[in-house]
Amino acid sequence: MKTGASRIETLAVIGVGLIGGSFAMALREAGRVGSVVGVGRGRANLDAALARGIVDRAVTLDEEWTRAIAGADLVLLATPVGEFRALFSALGARLAPHAIVTDAGSTKESVIAAARAHLGGAFARFVPGHPIAGTEHSGASAAFATLFRDRNVVLTPTAVTDRAALATVAGLWSACGAQVRELDPAVHDRIFAAVSHLPHLLAFALVDMLASRADCDDVFRFAASGFRDFTRIAASSPEMWRDISLANRDALVAAIEAYRAQLDTVAAMVASVDGAGLEALFARAAAARRAWGATHSAAAAVPADGSRER
Amino acid sequence: MKTGASRIETLAVIGVGLIGGSFAMALREAGRVGSVVGVGRGRANLDAALARGIVDRAVTLDEEWTRAIAGADLVLLATPVGEFRALFSALGARLAPHAIVTDAGSTKESVIAAARAHLGGAFARFVPGHPIAGTEHSGASAAFATLFRDRNVVLTPTAVTDRAALATVAGLWSACGAQVRELDPAVHDRIFAAVSHLPHLLAFALVDMLASRADCDDVFRFAASGFRDFTRIAASSPEMWRDISLANRDALVAAIEAYRAQLDTVAAMVASVDGAGLEALFARAAAARRAWGATHSAAAAVPADGSRER
Repeated sequence: MKTGASRIETLAVIGVGLIGGSFAMALREAGRVGSVVGVGRGRANLDAALARGIVDRAVTLDEEWTRAIAGADLVLLATPVGEFRALFSALGARLAPHAIVTDAGSTKESVIAAARAHLGGAFARFVPGHPIAGTEHSGASAAFATLFRDRNVVLTPTAVTDRAALATVAGLWSACGAQVRELDPAVHDRIFAAVSHLPHLLAFALVDMLASRADCDDVFRFAASGFRDFTRIAASSPEMWRDISLANRDALVAAIEAYRAQLDTVAAMVASVDGAGLEALFARAAAARRAWGATHSAAAAVPADGSRER
Repeated sequence: MKTGASRIETLAVIGVGLIGGSFAMALREAGRVGSVVGVGRGRANLDAALARGIVDRAVTLDEEWTRAIAGADLVLLATPVGEFRALFSALGARLAPHAIVTDAGSTKESVIAAARAHLGGAFARFVPGHPIAGTEHSGASAAFATLFRDRNVVLTPTAVTDRAALATVAGLWSACGAQVRELDPAVHDRIFAAVSHLPHLLAFALVDMLASRADCDDVFRFAASGFRDFTRIAASSPEMWRDISLANRDALVAAIEAYRAQLDTVAAMVASVDGAGLEALFARAAAARRAWGATHSAAAAVPADGSRER
């Protein structure tokens, strides 16, 4: 992908959490940003961002925040995706003519639809993005400049996306140390529904089911390292995953349907004592998982607890 | 539970792998065993056990193994549970009158049924057991004396189980450093179907589903740490999990049925855009998982890759 090496005079980050804060820190460390304006829901988090030097100015969404970022050259949306529609709406009329808008949302088709509907003429300069990174911590206090190093960042431009804006955003993520990749938005949503959103739902569903059992104390007493790993993602933010589930609804429903069919197959093998069928399925899965593990050991290192990549 | 401090003059371990080998090593280190006879399928693994001093003598299942262990005071079955029926059958007529038989199988009701059918008069001295421990490695070369330290070992005696034999086996596991707990066999099987066997099947099913997609290269390319943790157990032994799935068939089918109902609920929430319902379910799960994680950090430490607790 063509990337630009431009410097951003004024960066606005809406949602100065782990992702937004780390983006600002990485760009500052790379010498690619002048000043940073932070926008967020809570004053305490913004104060933390100011104290750490992540942002130079900060306003809450209750204040005149669109005025505060009116001169921004680049605006990053890094809140839960459920808030994007209102943010695009408020931004549409306020952006400088040259301003680029990008986002860090985990789903892309519904985000693009919201941007198309609400950004007006600025939609061509909206570059949809999804950094595949995170830790178990959240908030500005958890941000760090190397979060995106060697991680994938997926950009999903549309037919009307300005190629110079795309190159600028790609160049900024490269400056953060990320591997920038381009995908069709629908392809992105299908892939992440299968490999990220579905597993999160499966883990949430299992833990909720076990917690609601009459014998849940015994069940949890004997849970060991397999349970620990399988359910680590079930400690993720309920709000963020509510938004992702709804924003990627169609692809996620399709993934759940496919998984239910697969589960029916496995259940039928168990019920009919089909040992050969079970062993073959387990062997295919084990081979695929071991092959994946052998080639993805470094880039997807496991955090100490509670993965939060989206 | 009442535990005994007896010393085992001759221990026979059938299946000198991670579990069986570690049991022998731990008892030797505790000074609780005289000599150890190892029995297994493969000569190479037995030679490794001999070389490491885990066993003093070794015979393969193709040899006159029942004669070799005829004088054993305690026999541990630590092979995949699918082999237990044939082993009980061969043992029944050969055991010394005082010999105790125990096992390390991950399921208990079907193991007890097989023992009842094939051990004859020795059934009263069969103490069903399940050590909740493992690592990603297998075989005698992976065994180590501290594997069971601070881990749970569940014993599931029946109404006719000899209490002195039960106390002896409990005492030996205690000497290995384990926490010994007693459960009804059916309760054991229900609990482990839910908290261990079901998650393994879910992980195997997901990886096999993803690996069979036309776009599996893309799917695996963007898989990150959430996928890594969720599917770690899908790298487990296909043979062992085939046996466990079939041995605990009834409880596992019931657990899958309950999970499918739960998944239907989640799918309906996504399809009907029930954000409040999803957030409530995710929040219940996250709270339960975080509470579990806060109290089970040490005992269930995560191995480097591929958990194998059963």
